[in-house]
Amino acid sequence: MAKKISTDPYKGVRDFYPEDQFLQRFLFETMSRVCESFGYEEYSASLLEPSELYRGKSSEEIVNEQTYTFTDRGDREVTLRPEMTPTVARMIAARERTIAFPARWYSIPNIFRYERPQRGRLREHWQLNADIFGVPGIEADTEIIALAHRLMIEFGAKENDFEIRVNDRNILEALYGEVKLPASMRQQVTRVLDKRAKLSERAFASELAAASGDVSFSKAIIEGLSRIASNSQIEELFSHLKTYGVGNAVVDTSITRGFDYYTGIVFEVFDTSTENARSLFGGGRYDNLLQNFGGDSVAAVGFGMGDVTMRDFLDTHDLTPAYAPATELMLCPLSPEFFKRTIELAQALRSSDVTVAINYSLRRAGEQIAQADKMKIPFVICIGEKESESGKYTIKHLESGSETTLSAERIADHMFSSAG
Amino acid sequence: MAKKISTDPYKGVRDFYPEDQFLQRFLFETMSRVCESFGYEEYSASLLEPSELYRGKSSEEIVNEQTYTFTDRGDREVTLRPEMTPTVARMIAARERTIAFPARWYSIPNIFRYERPQRGRLREHWQLNADIFGVPGIEADTEIIALAHRLMIEFGAKENDFEIRVNDRNILEALYGEVKLPASMRQQVTRVLDKRAKLSERAFASELAAASGDVSFSKAIIEGLSRIASNSQIEELFSHLKTYGVGNAVVDTSITRGFDYYTGIVFEVFDTSTENARSLFGGGRYDNLLQNFGGDSVAAVGFGMGDVTMRDFLDTHDLTPAYAPATELMLCPLSPEFFKRTIELAQALRSSDVTVAINYSLRRAGEQIAQADKMKIPFVICIGEKESESGKYTIKHLESGSETTLSAERIADHMFSSAG
Repeated sequence: MAKKISTDPYKGVRDFYPEDQFLQRFLFETMSRVCESFGYEEYSASLLEPSELYRGKSSEEIVNEQTYTFTDRGDREVTLRPEMTPTVARMIAARERTIAFPARWYSIPNIFRYERPQRGRLREHWQLNADIFGVPGIEADTEIIALAHRLMIEFGAKENDFEIRVNDRNILEALYGEVKLPASMRQQVTRVLDKRAKLSERAFASELAAASGDVSFSKAIIEGLSRIASNSQIEELFSHLKTYGVGNAVVDTSITRGFDYYTGIVFEVFDTSTENARSLFGGGRYDNLLQNFGGDSVAAVGFGMGDVTMRDFLDTHDLTPAYAPATELMLCPLSPEFFKRTIELAQALRSSDVTVAINYSLRRAGEQIAQADKMKIPFVICIGEKESESGKYTIKHLESGSETTLSAERIADHMFSSAG
Repeated sequence: MAKKISTDPYKGVRDFYPEDQFLQRFLFETMSRVCESFGYEEYSASLLEPSELYRGKSSEEIVNEQTYTFTDRGDREVTLRPEMTPTVARMIAARERTIAFPARWYSIPNIFRYERPQRGRLREHWQLNADIFGVPGIEADTEIIALAHRLMIEFGAKENDFEIRVNDRNILEALYGEVKLPASMRQQVTRVLDKRAKLSERAFASELAAASGDVSFSKAIIEGLSRIASNSQIEELFSHLKTYGVGNAVVDTSITRGFDYYTGIVFEVFDTSTENARSLFGGGRYDNLLQNFGGDSVAAVGFGMGDVTMRDFLDTHDLTPAYAPATELMLCPLSPEFFKRTIELAQALRSSDVTVAINYSLRRAGEQIAQADKMKIPFVICIGEKESESGKYTIKHLESGSETTLSAERIADHMFSSAG
């Protein structure tokens, strides 16, 4: 006898039973619908990528310690993608000469990080990526932020449930120049600034002093960020956002985003609830990333929105939809002699776009109906002697308990009108 | 300057540009729609699985040489799933006590095989898996075959474009008993039988003799398979298939399916075209697989249908749909002063369920229209001085060249009626 195999999934990843997958589909279908309403087309790619794709812009350390990276038998280094932006940059770069710009693309890939699983930080999660390529002007940044805003609204959020915090990386770059911070320290200082909301004031001051090498830089930077309220780019952006009806965007010069590739406007969407106050997702402009592939630079703005944080947001704000199966009707034959009639009825209803499951358990009528109810299937029809002889079927709506007796050809219409 | 990064994807996997993803979506949406019409609910899981899931039923050799398997930093052996059946068996086994049977589940996972890329055999492909659990009777086998048939029809195939070849593993087992083939040789003999269609008659006879250890077994098996035409299970199956309107199923005692876990009816769907004659996909009954997890056995029947072979089938039979983008309308502002008006119009149309892209290139009207045409977007509206002042817009249908001038609130209705 073989050893018993565990039924657990691999550590830090999820199984999606039909009730879980229902929610994933709600997320993905809402994301697709809203992106497509803004003219974004779906693309996709394999999660297996050559590791060199990430070495270009990240440190060796990140590739080796925070990603799934292994060597295949052809001696190629392969990484399970930790984010989608390098992939979409690679794909756009490969066809830079033939793609019609502006190009609007979206995808909902799964991405992988090798880290200790904790709330909201699994080893695998899904992330909507929406990007616009080939528009250097602020109209692209505005559109991306308006799209992020529209997604939140379509998920059922009200404007006071979230806040969009906007900054321009150029403000930071200008400040670094003004205080004469050495170029070699800027990347590390930017990363510390990105963590500001998560640190105590004291820890922040001390990390910033360590990163900038001198407490005087650190003071000048903090002073500068509190002094500079905005710039002309941001003002133009906010005037466009008004046209889109976005009423909950604010300037926040402490927003920097972790990645090094951002070159202009950056933004983060925050949950404003007291029990879940935190950054939900964000994005920004990255005009130089495509140069890594040897082509011209292509203007690019985009963002990523993760499924795990969005599920938490929906739960926090009571916006998670109740499970409903794809199946609308269960047919319950009461004996094998009625299988033929049941299959004929099922096939006729399928032609009328009704989703139909047949219960082959041969349990008593009451038990079969209870089973449909447990599966949350809204309608049920039992098929026995009487139905088979008369050609009339009693369809029961389980939630209301109402019953109607109809001929086969009237069942589909009855269901559609009951579903309202 | 950093080294230039290649724009190629990893070896043996595909990039899906919007035109490619359109076809994937056509495949996936057709699969979902047909499965749901039969009462199947979608589930999903991570592609990362503990390697032990595959060692239970496959040889060490297959796990080591034909899968992507690596050791993570927690010293766990992880495999990128090479098929979905062990995963769904694991998930059902984990909730065997609470799931309502019959359970009908489907998923369209990507699966991985580490082999030399060749036509129809990539390292990553997607595969519809549809399974019914908890029905020991032939009505489940019938439904699964009827579902496979319906999928082919919904993809546009005619009954003479494909053929469903059915067998019962019990016929083979009975024959092995009859000719007294030692139990230790049966697995290998079954695998040789599975390859029969791909081998010359001579190579087949010689491989079979080698696997069965004696040319007399080999002769008795070939003779038996040509003599036995059917059994009572198969006859009941065919009578049910008639009720479903399936007219292109035949008995073929040479069908065995490669996997060892099948226990009853097995089937394969073949392309009947002369230029692409081959097995497209198949499945069967596997009643004992769930016992590997230490629970009760659960009756199970299912099949897998791959995207790569289905794409080839559609191409061969001229059934591949032409690309159409999700975007229905491109708005072309002729100068930045019209951006505000353009955004307002776009937002109003999005509220009426029109998918709208804004062309921010600021090229001449003719060039912007040519760009919409290149992207295959069906409708275009240019916005300049006249439109901005009059509030009337000329919408052009690019395929017919017809133009209509309308106020904003009439555009959506015009588009829906034109799309017919």
